Amino acid sequence: MGGKVCAIIGFGPGLGTACAETFNQAGYSLGLLSRSGAGFNGAEATNTSIRAYKCDAGNPDNLKGALASLQNDLGPIDVVIYNADLAQFGTLDDVSELQFEQSWRVGALGLFAAAKALGPQMSERGAGAIIVSGATAALRGNVWTTAFAPSKSAQRTLANALAKQLGPKGVHVAYLIIDGVIDTEDTRTNFASNEPDEFFIQPQRIAETALMLAHQHKSAWTFEIDIRPFGEKW
Amino acid sequence: MGGKVCAIIGFGPGLGTACAETFNQAGYSLGLLSRSGAGFNGAEATNTSIRAYKCDAGNPDNLKGALASLQNDLGPIDVVIYNADLAQFGTLDDVSELQFEQSWRVGALGLFAAAKALGPQMSERGAGAIIVSGATAALRGNVWTTAFAPSKSAQRTLANALAKQLGPKGVHVAYLIIDGVIDTEDTRTNFASNEPDEFFIQPQRIAETALMLAHQHKSAWTFEIDIRPFGEKW
Amino acid sequence: MGGKVCAIIGFGPGLGTACAETFNQAGYSLGLLSRSGAGFNGAEATNTSIRAYKCDAGNPDNLKGALASLQNDLGPIDVVIYNADLAQFGTLDDVSELQFEQSWRVGALGLFAAAKALGPQMSERGAGAIIVSGATAALRGNVWTTAFAPSKSAQRTLANALAKQLGPKGVHVAYLIIDGVIDTEDTRTNFASNEPDEFFIQPQRIAETALMLAHQHKSAWTFEIDIRPFGEKW
Amino acid sequence: MGGKVCAIIGFGPGLGTACAETFNQAGYSLGLLSRSGAGFNGAEATNTSIRAYKCDAGNPDNLKGALASLQNDLGPIDVVIYNADLAQFGTLDDVSELQFEQSWRVGALGLFAAAKALGPQMSERGAGAIIVSGATAALRGNVWTTAFAPSKSAQRTLANALAKQLGPKGVHVAYLIIDGVIDTEDTRTNFASNEPDEFFIQPQRIAETALMLAHQHKSAWTFEIDIRPFGEKW
Repeated sequence: MGGKVCAIIGFGPGLGTACAETFNQAGYSLGLLSRSGAGFNGAEATNTSIRAYKCDAGNPDNLKGALASLQNDLGPIDVVIYNADLAQFGTLDDVSELQFEQSWRVGALGLFAAAKALGPQMSERGAGAIIVSGATAALRGNVWTTAFAPSKSAQRTLANALAKQLGPKGVHVAYLIIDGVIDTEDTRTNFASNEPDEFFIQPQRIAETALMLAHQHKSAWTFEIDIRPFGEKW
Repeated sequence: MGGKVCAIIGFGPGLGTACAETFNQAGYSLGLLSRSGAGFNGAEATNTSIRAYKCDAGNPDNLKGALASLQNDLGPIDVVIYNADLAQFGTLDDVSELQFEQSWRVGALGLFAAAKALGPQMSERGAGAIIVSGATAALRGNVWTTAFAPSKSAQRTLANALAKQLGPKGVHVAYLIIDGVIDTEDTRTNFASNEPDEFFIQPQRIAETALMLAHQHKSAWTFEIDIRPFGEKW
Repeated sequence: MGGKVCAIIGFGPGLGTACAETFNQAGYSLGLLSRSGAGFNGAEATNTSIRAYKCDAGNPDNLKGALASLQNDLGPIDVVIYNADLAQFGTLDDVSELQFEQSWRVGALGLFAAAKALGPQMSERGAGAIIVSGATAALRGNVWTTAFAPSKSAQRTLANALAKQLGPKGVHVAYLIIDGVIDTEDTRTNFASNEPDEFFIQPQRIAETALMLAHQHKSAWTFEIDIRPFGEKW
Repeated sequence: MGGKVCAIIGFGPGLGTACAETFNQAGYSLGLLSRSGAGFNGAEATNTSIRAYKCDAGNPDNLKGALASLQNDLGPIDVVIYNADLAQFGTLDDVSELQFEQSWRVGALGLFAAAKALGPQMSERGAGAIIVSGATAALRGNVWTTAFAPSKSAQRTLANALAKQLGPKGVHVAYLIIDGVIDTEDTRTNFASNEPDEFFIQPQRIAETALMLAHQHKSAWTFEIDIRPFGEKW
């Protein structure tokens, strides 16, 4: 212990892993929270500054329990990367009330629960950062985002409320509008298998931006920043 | 029966009552849904085209049951005024996870459930309108809107998704950004007791705008419209 | 004279003509300003409450001169429909500095000049309306709107500044986001000749919305309202 | 010569100087354009990789001439910082047509002229960055921003159009929404003389963000990013 601590809520392949690598290289201990409890390339077996926790981000008690364990193991959390999302796509016909709810639980309620747990202690220390991995759907709804857009927009205005509450106390809350498809094995195989390399956002580049946000000087903080591949139509 | 039917979800004093008056004068039968099951000045006792239903808009099964009863009593719904909202204000410290959830249930999940119940049949008839009573908090969060803004923004992007799905089928979905305090006994007494008359939005004026939206020609539909008193600072 | 006066800046086929018809039927005298000085179906020859004026909306002195003549002829202006626009489309390669400037002159500088001329007297009377015919390009730029988007966005934030300055004095400023192609002989022939009827916005429907805005009660004024055909993808 | 070249259009104290320092330390040659032709702490006298040019950013021919001289002296421009602005504040009553026009010339027309001059050659090289120093007024008008908001919003949607045109060709255009008062001798003395240190944005922190944007990997480019001091109310 002793170094800074980064909690990644919604750890997994893609952006979660890229953030783990980037923050680890920058000297952070890592607490990785996911539904599966997956570790980081086995590094957690030998490295006591990397820990994995199994939890459901959409269940406030469950999430707060995992965050408490994490802080017990690694010390106070300095940076939260909130990356949990069900990516629940579909039209009004496709999506059930239950799916609509679960999408919101993981995208918005989990961020609220994390802020309830960590906001007061970060405020007391006068430091900390909460970086939320968002999407363009936070700004508008579309035919395929009947559940996704409401979840992301709730997440964004919650982050905005948190930024205004916690900012003056020295806690930085920022919202990343990721506008494009992240390069992962899953998106390459299932979702965008015919696209060229340049179609995809490289997750490590987003992770670099997350690190930049976490280290911004408080005289010039960013709340919202968009990110997309150079060839994206938008 | 025989005339057009307007369902007001979230009936009560203020905007709900103003919409009831305005749509009734325009010849609509009224189905009034509220947690209390309140009627419309006793008119429902003698007028069979006005009915009141007790239901919790935040409970999908409950809401869908009331909508089914309404359509059984009055016939197919032509216009929905979605006015349900808990107006849950408070900072991160004030609001509990339960309150955060309830705010979203009534503001966003209820609209989704109503759309699940009515969207397909309106699409089949190629007609219908869903008018949502929204707020500026749908666009951004603030210190006092930790629960309210996420609920309203989820509601707005859901309405936006519904507009894009149902519009081409002839069903008009519109979102009213009400930017100001509605003149009611409650706001006059508790919230803004020292303000002059011109501080308040007159609810019947919003109801007129709702009626205008319900009757817009489909070659020129509005999705979003803001409304505020002339002296409002914004 | 004696009745209310509506000035249409940027009169022509399509929306200008539709507003002329709609406001004339609602009892307004009409002052029609255009580069060609075109009249309204010859009605101005026999009807002294309809007058046409030749002016360049992008030239402040010219525009203010025409507005002075109009008020001399018809009396104080109650409603301005600001409809002047060059519809200058093109990429960075297509558009010259001169075209970029002319687009802004007609779209934004003309509105500013009209507000300089009419805002103070409307404020003094405590009444009046300035309705601006805008576009989605006011919100974002795109490949083909290198000149159009900057002109429309300048127009929109100017209208927003005017609304906040003049609103508390009783003068209503509103911005119509027209999202689609207006049905005119020109758009039918040159721009969208293969589109079905329902592709187009009927200009008389926009004119009805403009009249509604001009008559809104001051306790519930709209600044911004969007309008599009029901089948529009957006 | 040989290194990368940064052109700062609208060089001066505050952000211009901070960008000059930051990009110079990062190894860039500097071309400084300003109305006064001011140099960079006298460094241009002895350092041939720093040059100052006198020009009016609101005059396209003048600006393009200065950019041509700069490229003749230092080689092709890699990064443009567009920082020219008149900061013309005032109500409808305060601002003249001439001031309204000059504000737009320096804020928007100058950016267009720079893009006309540099966009095609940057596109041909498949590289380059144009970073625009913007403001919250780009998004909305207010009582005191009758001229400023239209100028900044035109600048923003122009930058947006440029980003969509030039991005796919490898040229990065980004817009910085600076939401707050930059710490300069002028703002400390005249505008915000009673404010504490933490009220101000430190210009070198904005310059760091500009450098970060200029160096972002093209798989994850930012178009828009906001920046404000941690204690800012917004």
